[in-house]
Amino acid sequence: MINVELKGGAVKEFENGTTPAEIAKSIGAGLYKSVCCAKVDGDLCDLRTPLGKDCKVELLTFDNVDGQKTFWHTASHVLAQAVKRLYPNAKCAIGPAVDNGFYYDFDVEKPFSPEDLEKIKAEMKKIVKSGLELERVELSPEEAEKKLEEMNEPYKVELVKEHSDKGEHITFYKQGEFIDLCAGPHLMSVAPIKAIELTACTGAYWRGDANNAQLCRVYGVAFPKASMLEEHLKKLEEAKLRDHNKLGRELEYFTTVDYVGQGLPILLPKGARVVQLLQRWVEDVEQSKGCLLTKTPLLAKRDLYKISGHWDHYLDGMFVLGDPHDEEKECFALRPMTCPFQYQVYLNKQRSYRDLPMRLTETSTLFRNEASGEMHGLIRVRQFTISEGHYILRPDQLEQEFKGCLELAKYFLDTVGLLENCTFRFSQWDPENKNNKYEGTKEQWEESQAVMKTILDDLDVDYEIGIDEAAFYGPKLDIQYKNVFGKEDTIVTIQIDMLLAERFGMYYIDKDGQKKLPYIIHRTSLGCFERTLAYMIERFAGVMPLWLAPEQIRLLPIKEGNVEYAQGIADRLTSLGMRVTVDSRDENIGPKIKAARLERIPYILVIGDNEMNSSTVTVRSRKRGEIPNMPVDEFVALVKNEVDTKEK
Amino acid sequence: MINVELKGGAVKEFENGTTPAEIAKSIGAGLYKSVCCAKVDGDLCDLRTPLGKDCKVELLTFDNVDGQKTFWHTASHVLAQAVKRLYPNAKCAIGPAVDNGFYYDFDVEKPFSPEDLEKIKAEMKKIVKSGLELERVELSPEEAEKKLEEMNEPYKVELVKEHSDKGEHITFYKQGEFIDLCAGPHLMSVAPIKAIELTACTGAYWRGDANNAQLCRVYGVAFPKASMLEEHLKKLEEAKLRDHNKLGRELEYFTTVDYVGQGLPILLPKGARVVQLLQRWVEDVEQSKGCLLTKTPLLAKRDLYKISGHWDHYLDGMFVLGDPHDEEKECFALRPMTCPFQYQVYLNKQRSYRDLPMRLTETSTLFRNEASGEMHGLIRVRQFTISEGHYILRPDQLEQEFKGCLELAKYFLDTVGLLENCTFRFSQWDPENKNNKYEGTKEQWEESQAVMKTILDDLDVDYEIGIDEAAFYGPKLDIQYKNVFGKEDTIVTIQIDMLLAERFGMYYIDKDGQKKLPYIIHRTSLGCFERTLAYMIERFAGVMPLWLAPEQIRLLPIKEGNVEYAQGIADRLTSLGMRVTVDSRDENIGPKIKAARLERIPYILVIGDNEMNSSTVTVRSRKRGEIPNMPVDEFVALVKNEVDTKEK
Repeated sequence: MINVELKGGAVKEFENGTTPAEIAKSIGAGLYKSVCCAKVDGDLCDLRTPLGKDCKVELLTFDNVDGQKTFWHTASHVLAQAVKRLYPNAKCAIGPAVDNGFYYDFDVEKPFSPEDLEKIKAEMKKIVKSGLELERVELSPEEAEKKLEEMNEPYKVELVKEHSDKGEHITFYKQGEFIDLCAGPHLMSVAPIKAIELTACTGAYWRGDANNAQLCRVYGVAFPKASMLEEHLKKLEEAKLRDHNKLGRELEYFTTVDYVGQGLPILLPKGARVVQLLQRWVEDVEQSKGCLLTKTPLLAKRDLYKISGHWDHYLDGMFVLGDPHDEEKECFALRPMTCPFQYQVYLNKQRSYRDLPMRLTETSTLFRNEASGEMHGLIRVRQFTISEGHYILRPDQLEQEFKGCLELAKYFLDTVGLLENCTFRFSQWDPENKNNKYEGTKEQWEESQAVMKTILDDLDVDYEIGIDEAAFYGPKLDIQYKNVFGKEDTIVTIQIDMLLAERFGMYYIDKDGQKKLPYIIHRTSLGCFERTLAYMIERFAGVMPLWLAPEQIRLLPIKEGNVEYAQGIADRLTSLGMRVTVDSRDENIGPKIKAARLERIPYILVIGDNEMNSSTVTVRSRKRGEIPNMPVDEFVALVKNEVDTKEK
Repeated sequence: MINVELKGGAVKEFENGTTPAEIAKSIGAGLYKSVCCAKVDGDLCDLRTPLGKDCKVELLTFDNVDGQKTFWHTASHVLAQAVKRLYPNAKCAIGPAVDNGFYYDFDVEKPFSPEDLEKIKAEMKKIVKSGLELERVELSPEEAEKKLEEMNEPYKVELVKEHSDKGEHITFYKQGEFIDLCAGPHLMSVAPIKAIELTACTGAYWRGDANNAQLCRVYGVAFPKASMLEEHLKKLEEAKLRDHNKLGRELEYFTTVDYVGQGLPILLPKGARVVQLLQRWVEDVEQSKGCLLTKTPLLAKRDLYKISGHWDHYLDGMFVLGDPHDEEKECFALRPMTCPFQYQVYLNKQRSYRDLPMRLTETSTLFRNEASGEMHGLIRVRQFTISEGHYILRPDQLEQEFKGCLELAKYFLDTVGLLENCTFRFSQWDPENKNNKYEGTKEQWEESQAVMKTILDDLDVDYEIGIDEAAFYGPKLDIQYKNVFGKEDTIVTIQIDMLLAERFGMYYIDKDGQKKLPYIIHRTSLGCFERTLAYMIERFAGVMPLWLAPEQIRLLPIKEGNVEYAQGIADRLTSLGMRVTVDSRDENIGPKIKAARLERIPYILVIGDNEMNSSTVTVRSRKRGEIPNMPVDEFVALVKNEVDTKEK
């Protein structure tokens, strides 16, 4: 017998070998129906896993993120089963759960049409209705490979081959006639997947690599209840209206071009203008806080990255010019981070304790060689520009400077309207990491993480902990933001590094005349400009805060006789530094207003005889509604104040 | 007999087969002594060349650039002869004349010391004194290779092998025991090389490639008279004091680091600040002139460059990520120009004649894969940032827009103090170019060059013509600038392109409803920011114009009691946007003044009790001398005006 601790701390006795599914059943039929997977002593596991010792068991339902993912993962198997029934020649690639549902990649002769998706959905519902149970099967690598060969699933064969040398058994899950290579966990049966929607069908490359076969990726989402699906789809529709990847293109902030490349967005004049304004603002604020701007090269010889450790820890994420493995030849790589470059500024001459803190910042373009499949609008890209800084410090300056970095980031994020939806994550190393991810000793990591914890607690930062998410040289405070679809990414990061100064020989002469190693804070302040632009488009549904709007005010003369008056007001506003246009086309006022609204111009001024005779303007603004006959002086004061205060 | 037209138009009769040397001798012994080479019907040739038909002969002496180069080329042979006498194991690589003298690359066991150079110079003087005559020798490729093998000159063997398949005879020049593979031309004897100086000894790679053997490069200069050498060395000393590659490092504008790479300068805070100020100024002026700023990616897939033609015409100059010849795999390259990227902005939607001219500009970072040996400070680099624009036009807008580009460039260059020393070069194609350098037909080139000629003549531009110096897609107006050592480079370029719009399908809908191809002007305005900074450091000997100076004003309190008063003035100036520091170190005023002068701070304010009591400052400025007890208000007005007017 074993003792199992359940939710709330109650301990029950079960026979050795009991599974979490059986425990759920013993508690009640309702729980058994809704349970998706379990956590045993904190580790996620399948409901079918026999328990062999005293342990703590959490039974996870759809309310829980891991439960949800298990649910969606089983739904992806149902999708594949339906596709194989309807298209027996389709080859299955991979089909994971993701943040907002699931997908499955298929190799098919032609992409699925919307009608095809309807048929597939209907077949999925049929499968769910039949209530098939899922069965877990283990095979030896040889058996697994043979089986998949017989099934004529070449992608699965490729996957299983990668594991065959490890000698481990390979897991499959089977429901009715359908069997799939899969590590699980999975639901006990397909029955709970009551409400299904297939949301999209796109192209995707096998393993995200454009050099491989192109596959057809079907996205879907599923819920235990129809009402939950309805609510989800409604939210999704609302999100789509704000989606920067759609709205940002429509409003001509950016575009992408296939023959230029994925993840390499082209900022059109409107997008470039916003980034220009953000960049100047950030540089000015930083310089006023004692930061020194630098401008360092975007590429360097392998030699630099060998010293910094990027060559050993980050090569896969880098764009390399030449053959990285040919040590005889000069080899350059684009920079994935600014640190080793900016250190050269510090190293330019001998530094003393009086020179510290040295706050180096740069409007820095970086390059990450990520898979094409990961790319998304302005958020996941291969080239981006950030305000990156390295503060080189005496140990006694660490807490105050860290605090300064956090305050600066909060000020920037608040001003652009993003702070309210940010969360904080304390990203730590994983001492168990097997992939040689981290530099330094256990002692060094414990010290830097302890220092960071003290600082975060002192500053009363409400953070989550992320294990195995640190940089290779130190722990991080990541400020996280979710896009309109709920996908989370880092917008700002502040890191403590006690390792790299030594690698570069970055000493300073202390008061006592001794050579000492400084600490380094790696930090971004506003973060990536492209990502900020994307989040702002979503947050403000395309109507930028006035101080950042590429076109702030558009004047619409009703007839030709009003053009000169309108132009006079435009000139006055322009001379105050405002970005203004006059729509003097020979066109009715209705379409002119419609065009300006569609382009999300913050202020639309309608100018007719009435306005001309009273020295006023009629204002239309999404924010302030319609204000007829506002005196021109009053309007000028209004917008000037709105810009000067960077009103959101 | 043949008729030879000489300088001034006089025609003389000579026997068929007469050489230019014999013609010089027939005119006078003085001319024979000083003649270096000749031009026959416009083509440069050796004095030993027999003339076989009626022709026009110019006899070139040291006064002429080509004469000078021939003189220096012979001097480089004398250098090699001296080295081989003193170091018989030295291997000779190449030894050309350059703009300011000559060099020769040797493979030697250890680099030459200053003492070695003295010995070599003494040996050269001995050789000159002996008055050896030079003899021109022709060998078949096989004989040449055999001879060089016997001489144990592996670099020369490699060079001769490249020519051996062309079947042409190989030329050597011989003086006494020394013989060298060389195309000439050369002096008749070494005697005229009266004054010699060996100016430097540096490392250089064989063929400029860091993957090859490192050689020892000896630089020298030589003149027919000692007084000329003296004058030259004096000028050189003066130039060295302004050399940005020395002064710019000393003043902490930039640095380079071996393990980062050659030609990849690191802008230190002072350099980055100047570039920031220049960039903002250029962007603001351009936007006020109706330019639309864009921000496009720094790399793209091979596919883009194939359309633009860069892949066929410019691949050698590009940094490629991956194997350019593996067509199966995705391959990216860093951009060497902005054009194909900025065209995507135009292509984002259909354009009408009303949208033109569309003036797209970008603060654009570019990459050129040049040989390490070519690198020089901030002037010859592998990565640089320019204000690059592409104006997309209707044909009827070409002249006016070209004029606008030229005026803009002149305004920028004038404001930064460089225009006065600029020259203009009309760079044309070469219809005879054998290297597939140019796109388009003869008719297209003739048209675009004719259009450009008309515009330049209309604008009364005083230009030289450069044959075979056009871009692959069209002719250029290059604005040229010489650095402090007389080395000339392009600072601004304005180009007419009638070819690329078609390759990218860049149409517009004209008034008549027809799809038409626009013309494109490719242009820079201020040009490369790094190069501008370099030329400004040289032009102003490190004392930047006030509006661009990284640190504009430094206040030096004489004693502690003056610090508060000084800080008050500093705060007032800072609030006006000035860049000000207070040197409040506990240090005598003498060293404080010296430090500020060494750092080339434009205004140094000395603050003592006297100044405090009279509400004044004592000004020290390189430009305005010393002004004791200037009222603070007056000083503020002075510097504010100097900044506002961008005074040089």
